[in-house]
Amino acid sequence: MEILRTITEVREYVVGQRARGARIGLVPTMGYFHAGHLELMRRAGGAGYTVVVSIFVNPTQFGPGEDYERYPRDLARDAQMAQTAGADVLFVPEAAEMYPSGYGTYVQVEGVSEGLCGAARPGHFRGVATVVCKLFNIVQPEAAFFGQKDYQQVMVIKRMAADLNLPVAITVVPTVREADGLAMSSRNTYLSPEERRQALALYQALRLGERLIKSGERRAAAVETALREGLQKPGVRLDYAEVRRAGDLARVEVIEDDAVLLVAAWVGQTRLIDNLVVGV
Amino acid sequence: MEILRTITEVREYVVGQRARGARIGLVPTMGYFHAGHLELMRRAGGAGYTVVVSIFVNPTQFGPGEDYERYPRDLARDAQMAQTAGADVLFVPEAAEMYPSGYGTYVQVEGVSEGLCGAARPGHFRGVATVVCKLFNIVQPEAAFFGQKDYQQVMVIKRMAADLNLPVAITVVPTVREADGLAMSSRNTYLSPEERRQALALYQALRLGERLIKSGERRAAAVETALREGLQKPGVRLDYAEVRRAGDLARVEVIEDDAVLLVAAWVGQTRLIDNLVVGV
Repeated sequence: MEILRTITEVREYVVGQRARGARIGLVPTMGYFHAGHLELMRRAGGAGYTVVVSIFVNPTQFGPGEDYERYPRDLARDAQMAQTAGADVLFVPEAAEMYPSGYGTYVQVEGVSEGLCGAARPGHFRGVATVVCKLFNIVQPEAAFFGQKDYQQVMVIKRMAADLNLPVAITVVPTVREADGLAMSSRNTYLSPEERRQALALYQALRLGERLIKSGERRAAAVETALREGLQKPGVRLDYAEVRRAGDLARVEVIEDDAVLLVAAWVGQTRLIDNLVVGV
Repeated sequence: MEILRTITEVREYVVGQRARGARIGLVPTMGYFHAGHLELMRRAGGAGYTVVVSIFVNPTQFGPGEDYERYPRDLARDAQMAQTAGADVLFVPEAAEMYPSGYGTYVQVEGVSEGLCGAARPGHFRGVATVVCKLFNIVQPEAAFFGQKDYQQVMVIKRMAADLNLPVAITVVPTVREADGLAMSSRNTYLSPEERRQALALYQALRLGERLIKSGERRAAAVETALREGLQKPGVRLDYAEVRRAGDLARVEVIEDDAVLLVAAWVGQTRLIDNLVVGV
């Protein structure tokens, strides 16, 4: 498995692959892989794509005071894991390769970028949309693979790809969880053992909300109250707990279509997110 | 010469052309062709490209109170002229084809979009960058052709293409002028015969500034004063008159590199722009 550092190298690799009849599947990541990332790679490989995995801790999606500097990085470990999961090539650019001096273009997705994580992290989804747009143009994949854990991110990217006519099929892969239900996240590495136990509150709150809907509750406000109560645990500080329409993240008062329950909370110094889609 | 209305049709056309070994040259326009547009098509055809000409009066680049509704449109006339100039296909989408319900993605180019026309027309270059990004993704041309008359627009598009890694070569074609020097523009059709004479002030002011620089003046402020004086004519109302560095539109106090003189002025109800690059 090759590790490529420059846009030129990746383009040459892709052109070569395509000349041999390959279709390209892109897995955009910020590295520090866990089982969720590996599942994305396996899904891409399993669907017959040549698997290009990008590792780029994207500065434009971090706000001031966020964890850009301390975000975990370990390329040697990532390379070994990716190879095992069937990645064909890693694209690992420096920040200056993606954002050279004089850089000034940003992709803004209105609507789905607002509220939820967009409220807590202004500019975050602008950075996400921008870097994914660039990666799509650099790699020109037939398909790209994202984890459902970042639900709003997936909606932003789908909206962007459709709006900007980027001919890339977006595949969303279900969230991979620890045995006790905690959603896999590179940020889980920040948690102390006690925080790791407290962090389970997110998934437990989601399951509580799910049970409520399954038992017939259709008032979004009632479900949101239950989510918030489920997050009122020692060491856990609520950011948001919302019920939205799964298809487009529209706010709902009465749940009539498939819903997505979305929560974000601080556990110590670590902000975690999770979600659950509930069919009705 | 075919006229295609949908994104799907254009994509099929391009795929078919490329399968035959063609390279695609895109000429994005708002229609109502003049000799400047035809020159872009001839240049694209002359360079061996299959020439795709888009005609789309792009609503997102017009502000409230601007001339979106009354912008001149005449497809029958345009089709005849484009065929004569060697266009291979016209892409003429409806607004709802480019911006369907729920549309929400915009491309913002910081820096070069600010000042000049960006100051007079807030959101204009966001609309330009967005629609050109879409057209590049729809047509996936090897090259695209733009007129130098819209100098700032060209700088915005070059910046966007570089920043978003759009693999399209941007060719800038010199401004085509009427016999007396007036820059060709679809908006010239708005001018009354008297306004048509008054409109010549823009080009005359630019030539005045050019002579000043050629005679050794290097202070940008002195040249800008001359441009403004040149525009103090009956029926002409100044918007801006500036000297910038030609390569990147940077503001300059002392002219040390090739300069671009840029003017915008109202003649009656019509806003006109023009520019001249002056080598030093």
